[in-house]
Amino acid sequence: MQEPPHITLADIEAARRTIAGHVLRTPILAAPPLSALTGADVYVKYENLQVTNSFKERGACAKLTALGPAERRRGVIAMSAGNHAQAVAYHARRLAVPATIVMPITTPFVKVKVTEAFGATVVLHGETLAEAQVRAAVIAGERNLVWVHPYDDAHIIAGQGTIALEMLEEVPELDVMIVPIGGGGLIAGNTIAAHAIKPGIEVVGVECALYPSMWNAIHGGKKPCGGATLAEGIAVSAAGALTLPIVREHVHDIILVDEPQIERAVNAFLTLQKTMAEGAGAAGLAAMLAAPDRFAGRKVGLILCGGNIDPRILASIMVRELEREDRIVSFRLTIPDRPGILGQIASRLGELGANILSVDHHRLFLDVPAKGAKLDVTVETRDGAHAEQILRTLLADGYQPVRMEGGAALE
Amino acid sequence: MQEPPHITLADIEAARRTIAGHVLRTPILAAPPLSALTGADVYVKYENLQVTNSFKERGACAKLTALGPAERRRGVIAMSAGNHAQAVAYHARRLAVPATIVMPITTPFVKVKVTEAFGATVVLHGETLAEAQVRAAVIAGERNLVWVHPYDDAHIIAGQGTIALEMLEEVPELDVMIVPIGGGGLIAGNTIAAHAIKPGIEVVGVECALYPSMWNAIHGGKKPCGGATLAEGIAVSAAGALTLPIVREHVHDIILVDEPQIERAVNAFLTLQKTMAEGAGAAGLAAMLAAPDRFAGRKVGLILCGGNIDPRILASIMVRELEREDRIVSFRLTIPDRPGILGQIASRLGELGANILSVDHHRLFLDVPAKGAKLDVTVETRDGAHAEQILRTLLADGYQPVRMEGGAALE
Repeated sequence: MQEPPHITLADIEAARRTIAGHVLRTPILAAPPLSALTGADVYVKYENLQVTNSFKERGACAKLTALGPAERRRGVIAMSAGNHAQAVAYHARRLAVPATIVMPITTPFVKVKVTEAFGATVVLHGETLAEAQVRAAVIAGERNLVWVHPYDDAHIIAGQGTIALEMLEEVPELDVMIVPIGGGGLIAGNTIAAHAIKPGIEVVGVECALYPSMWNAIHGGKKPCGGATLAEGIAVSAAGALTLPIVREHVHDIILVDEPQIERAVNAFLTLQKTMAEGAGAAGLAAMLAAPDRFAGRKVGLILCGGNIDPRILASIMVRELEREDRIVSFRLTIPDRPGILGQIASRLGELGANILSVDHHRLFLDVPAKGAKLDVTVETRDGAHAEQILRTLLADGYQPVRMEGGAALE
Repeated sequence: MQEPPHITLADIEAARRTIAGHVLRTPILAAPPLSALTGADVYVKYENLQVTNSFKERGACAKLTALGPAERRRGVIAMSAGNHAQAVAYHARRLAVPATIVMPITTPFVKVKVTEAFGATVVLHGETLAEAQVRAAVIAGERNLVWVHPYDDAHIIAGQGTIALEMLEEVPELDVMIVPIGGGGLIAGNTIAAHAIKPGIEVVGVECALYPSMWNAIHGGKKPCGGATLAEGIAVSAAGALTLPIVREHVHDIILVDEPQIERAVNAFLTLQKTMAEGAGAAGLAAMLAAPDRFAGRKVGLILCGGNIDPRILASIMVRELEREDRIVSFRLTIPDRPGILGQIASRLGELGANILSVDHHRLFLDVPAKGAKLDVTVETRDGAHAEQILRTLLADGYQPVRMEGGAALE
């Protein structure tokens, strides 16, 4: 077995000099609304403000700049359906290095388009990342291209580690950093940098519960990996060969977060900090929601590592959160089917201060009396107490309201 | 007539010392994706990262801190349905000054709740801001409270002007600043600061076309003010008495932006910069979309002055933009009403790579043959060309597709 390269603070400082001026030095800012939410003293590093909206540019820039003239002429190849693809494409164009990116055919078209817009040649192949990976290896061999691995590469790891240098320079009093783990490149670089600068700092990793690959590797666990997660950016089924020993040596703990926690964290970034976090980008905050006692009262640095989330998914998360808070409520009423009833109900809802969002009128359900009908109504309320008041009033009016969720009757 | 106070760079520098440590020094960052969109070299000052998510804290903090002990004991009153309310409430609590905020009864409940959460006493009164204003004046007199005006106040103006100090310190090479105008406090303070530091800089104001009050005042125009705007934060019907002469002396030009431009700008901040801008917060970018030639090739500083936008409005803006780009397309098909047809059409759409978002099946329309039905389908496409291909194929299949917009048939 090959001895893994030893990555040091000096390597990360060198990477920092390499990427200076080409990768944004993103702000790290106190986030009082998130502090109020979590009971900790929260600081956020806004990596979603990078040109391609994720931290991946740091590693990609460090790696591509380190290539010699012959390698640059040969060109590079990477496999990714997401942020690594855009980061490699963007910095390859900047450095005039030809780039080929292999993506699964299931990749959302907008991501293909963005990657092509940065001048990369995109090859669509395979249903899964694994199939695309096989194809990428074949093309790399055929065309003699330089492989740019998303995490198992010393330059990539050193590049990602520059985040901790910036964070601890601006907020040296951080007690703990929470870092999302996919393959482990981000946490490997940052834990080396953080511990070299401030040995006492705690570094906590976070994985989504559906893909606990690093957790398994560290704890000898056998939790299954798989399923659809909002945090597809860290949905990696096997820990990296280079990153695993670094995580084992340096990382204090790995917290697993479930999908509702990730969703709440994405929503909190949006509604409290007015910033877009993709699932993986919000994973650190999700870990705080999962284990609030662990972080209460401490100075916590979060890396908002990416902001590439589909606007429709974001919209649906926001609406679901409003439903969860009973600020959007759907119910089905049973009404006599005669003129004027809808007007009466709408006026009643108006008096109650409920804002009607949608109305659906059904005459054909089998459980409706021949002269009756069902009315599905969705309203906006002030809060849970207001929602209850509205339902109680409609009950007293004889409309037999039944709560529904997501448009389907619950009872 | 009373001589208006003369506000100078020294006043703004004093305000800066006052607010230091209490108001966030927000980042100003290059925004390459917005530069690519506009053809200019765009820098964004992220005032939406303030605790209450708008620049209003600067003025509120400067004003409240300037109060003497007796005034602090009396307490303050303000009238606002929006960002000024939260800013005054937040800094009043911090300084232990009792605060009363008068809001119209139409204020969204969430804004009332947030303001109360900062410890302010909220009085709901009147249908409009004008009616709330009258009530606030009465209460101020009755209870001997100190009035905190949202813009016609020298301390408020000096506080807002601290933004330009920070911007020109970090990006001294800016050629032009674009500043939203409501009552004019933001632009008055910032134009004084900017011109004192860098006399050659151009300062351009922006108002929404529905409320061109400062434009009217400067140009002797009589354009009407009124209507529902996405930029409610700058929907002010009369220019400020203190701010107007400053704008007249210092501001080079006022650009009026229409609602579609504001909507596009909000969407661009969200999808390209992953940050939330309310309508007023995106007004500067909207001005660049309205007059691209005016800014092409120049270094432009935008103040993203606020991020308080209702999540549901944001979601609807994103979806409308996807519809505009034909990435979400709705159409109505005429189909024979027999088993298996829906399956055939769904399979066909799958082959074409169209992702079905919704299906509605109608048998009862009068223009449908007795044995026929209408099917309303909404699909997600890759782009306009893909949408056209889908519709052409369905036409060739005999389903007579008719494009619809927002769920209603166009033709």
